Amino acid sequence: MTFQTYDPPGANPQDIRDRVERLRATFSALDIEGVLVPHEDAYQSEYLPPSEERLAFITGFTGSAGRAVILEEKALFVTDGRYTLQAASQVPEDVFDVVSKDEDADQWLKSHLGDARIGYDPNLHARSRLEALAKTVPDVTLVALESHPVDGTWTDRPAPTVGMVRAHGTERSGRTVAEKLADVRASFDADGLFIGAADTVSWLFNWRGSDIAHTPLVLCRAFIPKEGPVTVFVDPHKLPNEFQEALEGLADIEPTSAYPAALTRLSQNRTILADPAAASEAALKAIEEGGSLKTGKDPAARLKSIKNEAEIEGMRAAHQRDGLAMVRLLAWLDANAVGQTEIAVCERLENLRREMGAMDVSFDTIAGAGPNGAIVHYRVDRNSNRTIASGDPVLIDSGGQYEDGTTDITRTIVAGDPSDEFKVQFTRVLKGHIAIARQHFPAGTTGAALDSFARSALWSAGFDYQHGTGHGVGAALAVHEGPPGISKRSSAALEPGMIVSNEPGYYRQGAYGIRIENLVLVRPPEVPPGGDTPMLSFETITLAPIDTRLVVPSMMSPGELAWLDLYHARVLGALGAELEPQTRDWLEATCRPIGG
Amino acid sequence: MTFQTYDPPGANPQDIRDRVERLRATFSALDIEGVLVPHEDAYQSEYLPPSEERLAFITGFTGSAGRAVILEEKALFVTDGRYTLQAASQVPEDVFDVVSKDEDADQWLKSHLGDARIGYDPNLHARSRLEALAKTVPDVTLVALESHPVDGTWTDRPAPTVGMVRAHGTERSGRTVAEKLADVRASFDADGLFIGAADTVSWLFNWRGSDIAHTPLVLCRAFIPKEGPVTVFVDPHKLPNEFQEALEGLADIEPTSAYPAALTRLSQNRTILADPAAASEAALKAIEEGGSLKTGKDPAARLKSIKNEAEIEGMRAAHQRDGLAMVRLLAWLDANAVGQTEIAVCERLENLRREMGAMDVSFDTIAGAGPNGAIVHYRVDRNSNRTIASGDPVLIDSGGQYEDGTTDITRTIVAGDPSDEFKVQFTRVLKGHIAIARQHFPAGTTGAALDSFARSALWSAGFDYQHGTGHGVGAALAVHEGPPGISKRSSAALEPGMIVSNEPGYYRQGAYGIRIENLVLVRPPEVPPGGDTPMLSFETITLAPIDTRLVVPSMMSPGELAWLDLYHARVLGALGAELEPQTRDWLEATCRPIGG
Repeated sequence: MTFQTYDPPGANPQDIRDRVERLRATFSALDIEGVLVPHEDAYQSEYLPPSEERLAFITGFTGSAGRAVILEEKALFVTDGRYTLQAASQVPEDVFDVVSKDEDADQWLKSHLGDARIGYDPNLHARSRLEALAKTVPDVTLVALESHPVDGTWTDRPAPTVGMVRAHGTERSGRTVAEKLADVRASFDADGLFIGAADTVSWLFNWRGSDIAHTPLVLCRAFIPKEGPVTVFVDPHKLPNEFQEALEGLADIEPTSAYPAALTRLSQNRTILADPAAASEAALKAIEEGGSLKTGKDPAARLKSIKNEAEIEGMRAAHQRDGLAMVRLLAWLDANAVGQTEIAVCERLENLRREMGAMDVSFDTIAGAGPNGAIVHYRVDRNSNRTIASGDPVLIDSGGQYEDGTTDITRTIVAGDPSDEFKVQFTRVLKGHIAIARQHFPAGTTGAALDSFARSALWSAGFDYQHGTGHGVGAALAVHEGPPGISKRSSAALEPGMIVSNEPGYYRQGAYGIRIENLVLVRPPEVPPGGDTPMLSFETITLAPIDTRLVVPSMMSPGELAWLDLYHARVLGALGAELEPQTRDWLEATCRPIGG
Repeated sequence: MTFQTYDPPGANPQDIRDRVERLRATFSALDIEGVLVPHEDAYQSEYLPPSEERLAFITGFTGSAGRAVILEEKALFVTDGRYTLQAASQVPEDVFDVVSKDEDADQWLKSHLGDARIGYDPNLHARSRLEALAKTVPDVTLVALESHPVDGTWTDRPAPTVGMVRAHGTERSGRTVAEKLADVRASFDADGLFIGAADTVSWLFNWRGSDIAHTPLVLCRAFIPKEGPVTVFVDPHKLPNEFQEALEGLADIEPTSAYPAALTRLSQNRTILADPAAASEAALKAIEEGGSLKTGKDPAARLKSIKNEAEIEGMRAAHQRDGLAMVRLLAWLDANAVGQTEIAVCERLENLRREMGAMDVSFDTIAGAGPNGAIVHYRVDRNSNRTIASGDPVLIDSGGQYEDGTTDITRTIVAGDPSDEFKVQFTRVLKGHIAIARQHFPAGTTGAALDSFARSALWSAGFDYQHGTGHGVGAALAVHEGPPGISKRSSAALEPGMIVSNEPGYYRQGAYGIRIENLVLVRPPEVPPGGDTPMLSFETITLAPIDTRLVVPSMMSPGELAWLDLYHARVLGALGAELEPQTRDWLEATCRPIGG
């Protein structure tokens, strides 16, 4: 068994047309004129078990972010800039108007919704999303439904997954459940906290699971009263007996089916904090029925994102092993890329990671040769599988799930000789990457305040990329986790111990894609010599060379060149001794300084 | 008569104590346990007539931003980083706990307010501010009062100003009132728009006034129905008869006293758009009593901030004249600074501006020598007036109000020889200034996304400054205007025609201040040669040399040096021919390239 498959995803357009018609046939009995179909499941998660892939079922779109609005005659599909090309190829245009900008989506809604009655499943929507929609189209009546009408029309819907829970021991997690519970309880000012995000609850209980491909979270929710036992909503069949026993006195287990009714009971006469951007409308309603709702950011999500020493050690160790796998791949590609297929690259990399102990990939490997590289979240399948030709740039974005950490790295190579134009663009992307890697910033600085540094060299030359510069990464958990990030929308302050990706890019549609991604750890504040203000900074924890043959040194500043040479010295120092001689020779040559 | 006075501002601490006690004596009759005292007046304005200086009266603080909460036993005064030092010297600490961070203010409120009944004047608070307060201290009961209790205890309160209105003709404003009204009506989706900001209404009616020192706005408000005549609330005594006649068919004049009751009548059966951050709670309540309130950003404020060709021409012409005044000041200072007082510098600059046609300064000139320069918004008075000593850095932040434009410029010089440390810091600030001036950015980019560029060189060395990098500037109107800006909080997209300041700084408390400020105009989008995406950029419209003797060239990149040399060539080209020979010689020497 391999970690990922290469079956062509999606559905044929006629299937989509039929499914949409079957869905529309449910409208009159429900007294609605349209329905919302989000990508998220009842955990507001980006990562879904197959049974929750409603959006893929009804639109054909298999990416990780999107939403649809299906009316009686018209339908809208919305995604973002990472998925513009993929949506165009998967979503039938005779059924859906496809847009990838929020403003275009708003315009469509204003033109077509009028005062319609639009159904939605309150389990699948965070309240903040519904409020934003109501603000855009105030005359619409939003009708809460018992369940999503897609489900009733989905005849071959997969069964829910029941992945057994395993312990993520204290040697890896760094804190016991009791300690984490104490931290969480100290972090909020209310009678209780509801956490609807499964990855946060998995972190809190030191649990890992296999409900979802590539993301070892356990589908569960938690209610944390300020005092007294916690309630965890989880399928008890997933929990080995000794786990239930270990929680005695700390937490009561309730089956998933008890939620959200139990939430109403637990909220009685209490003020309960919940995050309207992370908990479902159904959960918030349940709290409001029982007690008093206080809205605010989930403090546990922030605590999860601040890695402790054990987690940082685990992440560093995982990156050490992952770096060896990456170096072996890059060395092999350097001699053998031409004639290989994208799937062959994915399979080789998967095997190299397995040899280093990876339990899974952290997402379907992206290996995009030539024009496929311009599809930001490209996923190769047997139909799209391109054979690498001489001169093809190849973008490889991949990661591994190890027991002690999660990795996410992108390298772009060229099979043969790069064009001058490619080198210039590669250098601009690299300058953006280095700008983030080297930046110092005071406490309180958000990812939004750093994002532009990664774009400056591209902007000045008349280029940009349509995705964020970085996302938070979990410790042996979800490869995308909030609240930190580096993007226009990243409003969380970056704090010591947070780990985010640094991945600027450039995409020339129909030609190639470039992305350079490392993970960076926020270092504790330190006053630079001679300065008067403590500054945070980043430590790059990803270890793999960046191809200096693709760099135009004259476009780089002395400081940028020094960063690159120092990084390569670190990579060589960390990995060299563990490599077989031939690969080590290759790494030595690759890590040679170019700053002169 | 001079544009500004140098009387020591504020009050002696005993007066403040007495005033606060008189205020507290009103609490029991009002059934309140405390009261909010904002800086803003009933127009939510930063710029106040003397009759509205409640905060200065009750706290002693004379800066342009702050707020107080006065309880029976305790009191809080809050300002921001620009005013930390000034607040410490003006606000008596035995009466007020003084803080300059929002988090500290929140902490104080949480500790001291409990479930108290706190009075406020709904005319003086934007709803968004009250909502933020209610979120911080949810148990507090906010009690709307008929008027502010300070007013009843303020025996020698100045009378309201009645400055006559003059026309800002189409040759300067670029658009007739009818054209602007059509633009505004096309900009919103509701039955009507209420504009509570006096500078926006002054812009809309091509009016200028003299109600407020240094800011030629007219105190007025407007209600703009989608169709039918507009209502302007303004003291009719300010309006020459021919103005009233010119508005026939376009707008009805109602006296200020008719507001807010008339707003309730005008809102009947209508949905009215108003900006909860720019209109008062009283206005929003009046709308809600009559019709239905729709909240959103004021679209007229955005239109105002996008300067048309005539306004841009006026701003350029004003900067040309202002540049001549500044060059004459700088040339004189270069030979004569030592032994001059700060007031003498202010007076000389005011006279030089008058000679160039200035009708006013655009704010009290900041001339801070040595340690006074570290007070970000320093205003010299006869007590603080420092005589410039050899080696003193002097920070001069000033502007003029001309018939065709408003200027705002900061230059920092050194009387005699600068220290090496000063030059290093000056160069870091200059690098930040140039980073903004040179940056290209795509449509949709906010000022928040650019702010960090101005700080990067300082951050890397362990320094920062506690103010925004830039604010919007009006065309012959308020020197601070929204929505654009360059700061962590500037969420408005920068659009072609907007004018903002670019003013990074560095302040060493007790020693000196550095700030380098030019105004920049957002240029229309253009695809850089070879690029694929249109980019906006800035044109610097301020014309005055930056002292290159304070720069460490080796710390600058070739691109930064090229910008500086090109800027100086532009300054010399624009101003040289209009200067008397001796000053021209000085400017030529000062503008000599340093990039080699």
